[in-house]
Amino acid sequence: MSESPILLTPGPLTTSIETRRAMLRDWGSRDPAFIALTAELRARLLAVARGEGTHVAVPLQGSGTFIVEAAIATLIGPTDKLLVLINGAYGERMVTIGKRMGRAVEAIRWAEDRPVEPARVAEALRADPSITHVALVHCETTTGILNPLEDVAAIVAGAGRALLLDAMSSFGALPIDLSTTPVTAVLASSNKCLEGVPGLGFALVEPPALERAKGVSPSLSFDLHAQWKGFEADGQWRFTPPVQVVAALVEALRLLETEGGPKARHARYSDNFRTLLAGMRRLGFELFLDEAVQAPIIATFHLPADRGLAFRPFYEALAARGFLIYPGKLTQAETFRIGCIGALDRHDFERLLEAVAETVRVLEAA
Amino acid sequence: MSESPILLTPGPLTTSIETRRAMLRDWGSRDPAFIALTAELRARLLAVARGEGTHVAVPLQGSGTFIVEAAIATLIGPTDKLLVLINGAYGERMVTIGKRMGRAVEAIRWAEDRPVEPARVAEALRADPSITHVALVHCETTTGILNPLEDVAAIVAGAGRALLLDAMSSFGALPIDLSTTPVTAVLASSNKCLEGVPGLGFALVEPPALERAKGVSPSLSFDLHAQWKGFEADGQWRFTPPVQVVAALVEALRLLETEGGPKARHARYSDNFRTLLAGMRRLGFELFLDEAVQAPIIATFHLPADRGLAFRPFYEALAARGFLIYPGKLTQAETFRIGCIGALDRHDFERLLEAVAETVRVLEAA
Repeated sequence: MSESPILLTPGPLTTSIETRRAMLRDWGSRDPAFIALTAELRARLLAVARGEGTHVAVPLQGSGTFIVEAAIATLIGPTDKLLVLINGAYGERMVTIGKRMGRAVEAIRWAEDRPVEPARVAEALRADPSITHVALVHCETTTGILNPLEDVAAIVAGAGRALLLDAMSSFGALPIDLSTTPVTAVLASSNKCLEGVPGLGFALVEPPALERAKGVSPSLSFDLHAQWKGFEADGQWRFTPPVQVVAALVEALRLLETEGGPKARHARYSDNFRTLLAGMRRLGFELFLDEAVQAPIIATFHLPADRGLAFRPFYEALAARGFLIYPGKLTQAETFRIGCIGALDRHDFERLLEAVAETVRVLEAA
Repeated sequence: MSESPILLTPGPLTTSIETRRAMLRDWGSRDPAFIALTAELRARLLAVARGEGTHVAVPLQGSGTFIVEAAIATLIGPTDKLLVLINGAYGERMVTIGKRMGRAVEAIRWAEDRPVEPARVAEALRADPSITHVALVHCETTTGILNPLEDVAAIVAGAGRALLLDAMSSFGALPIDLSTTPVTAVLASSNKCLEGVPGLGFALVEPPALERAKGVSPSLSFDLHAQWKGFEADGQWRFTPPVQVVAALVEALRLLETEGGPKARHARYSDNFRTLLAGMRRLGFELFLDEAVQAPIIATFHLPADRGLAFRPFYEALAARGFLIYPGKLTQAETFRIGCIGALDRHDFERLLEAVAETVRVLEAA
């Protein structure tokens, strides 16, 4: 094994060595030991969002996009209509997914640096009674912007519609309390704020929504009703699970509990973000978003072209020092992104800032 | 980490410790190091089936069922018709998948202990010119039966139709030579004869079939054309890959090469199977299949109810001794299955046979 780089990415990210070591054993996927591990996984996922009394956890093999597609395939029926609230690439992707499978999909769009406005959502729901479901991206990884979950959830529930929440980049760190916030389905994955390895998505869904969805999905693999019934029947996965990825996620969830839960994790990520932002500002970099709408998950910075910094050499110089950053995903501006999540603390960001300072010195002198 | 049990299962199975250790590092999924790993993965997968000159490798996140569904979604268009050749559960599953997504699907069925008969396939293709694609399961994990790939492939190609081969349980051990055998798409997964960990499927596909399939799939995630174009564009995965599972599979493919390739692996599995069969016969167990149609992949044995052996106590007694076997999947007979695949050799099977002998002694005395 070669040494792991420090990943300053929105996932896959830096995991703890305990989480990776949990992958060193083989598991029989139909053995009672693995059935118990799956039960622990499902219970711990619910507990992270306080969903024990209202939701069930349905893990699914594959990437985060797979669980989003499975939720749309299962929960949006052929006579339903989905309204997607978009201020980034992941909202756009939900529209693409719904349209590809022939579902009725509408969208409201905001600029990538503007949060979703609850009042416009309320207006759209009043104007179109045929909308049955609304989809919101909690934290858009495109920029790192935080959308107003509580306000949107209240408006959607007040209008008698169902809310699908893409919590991919927020689950485990930003507050999500299903015991008080009305959300029909929360979607996330193993490899972001939970600090597991990639290969697994999951939905926390209200059982009545799943019960109504029997046979709705046009896809056997992306049928969350059948996936749920499989777990309920014998505790087993319908199709071969990524056993080592499951074991790693359970270990990561135990570590989340040890750390003090999502609140403690949020505090650590906020500390990472503040350390990063202060240092980057000292080095002359500007944050793309207004700080008021910035989540402490991933930060987008302008790439100052006037200082002769291009992404590729900047990336490579930092990579040579052991730090992997992330390209921007914006159409409108030259940017790069630095993740604040993963098994990292402020000391890692202090070392990163030293590497950025050196890199800038070298590249600007060249 | 607790000690791994010996998995005598059709996958997830026993992997080598080198393969599992390859998961101990973190990878940036868009970093050049991981792009190189993905390129090595794709090249090695092709080489296993000698497909370098004719096919491209398209890996996909998720379980084996996901890659089967993605191949059907991508390659069977709305005006095509798929004929599935069925002698077990995995053939049936392909019908379910095709019908769920609204594709035209026909089937020919054989008993679970009878191999697919090429003559009946030829007859069906003559009778129905609207059939565009044929699907064959190379080795049905339901029983362990081997189907006649070469003969079926020749008939399908001779009739001008395309063949999809589910090689889930055979790829890497049973002979598949794409330089001489006409197969449009071969489908398999990381965690069977390749001895990787689960979490990844892959298709080896003829590029013209993929080119024709642009925009055909009703699923964004299960679009092998787009997945392929993603790799071709920048060497990256469209959606987050399970980086540790990829690293484990590359290590497993390197170990396959070191062992001497599929031929050497086939020889080891055959040795495992012969050791198992001889020993089980000595202990009074009967093979479900005729030996002539049995692949050395997974063996189904009758559970002799007259000797008071029920599956659950038999399983538990063997599990307590460190060996995990597999339940039967037949409707017609009480059986259990023992896999011959994984990082195991005849010495493991000799130890298994001692454990079976002890278990039988204890259970029959009870």
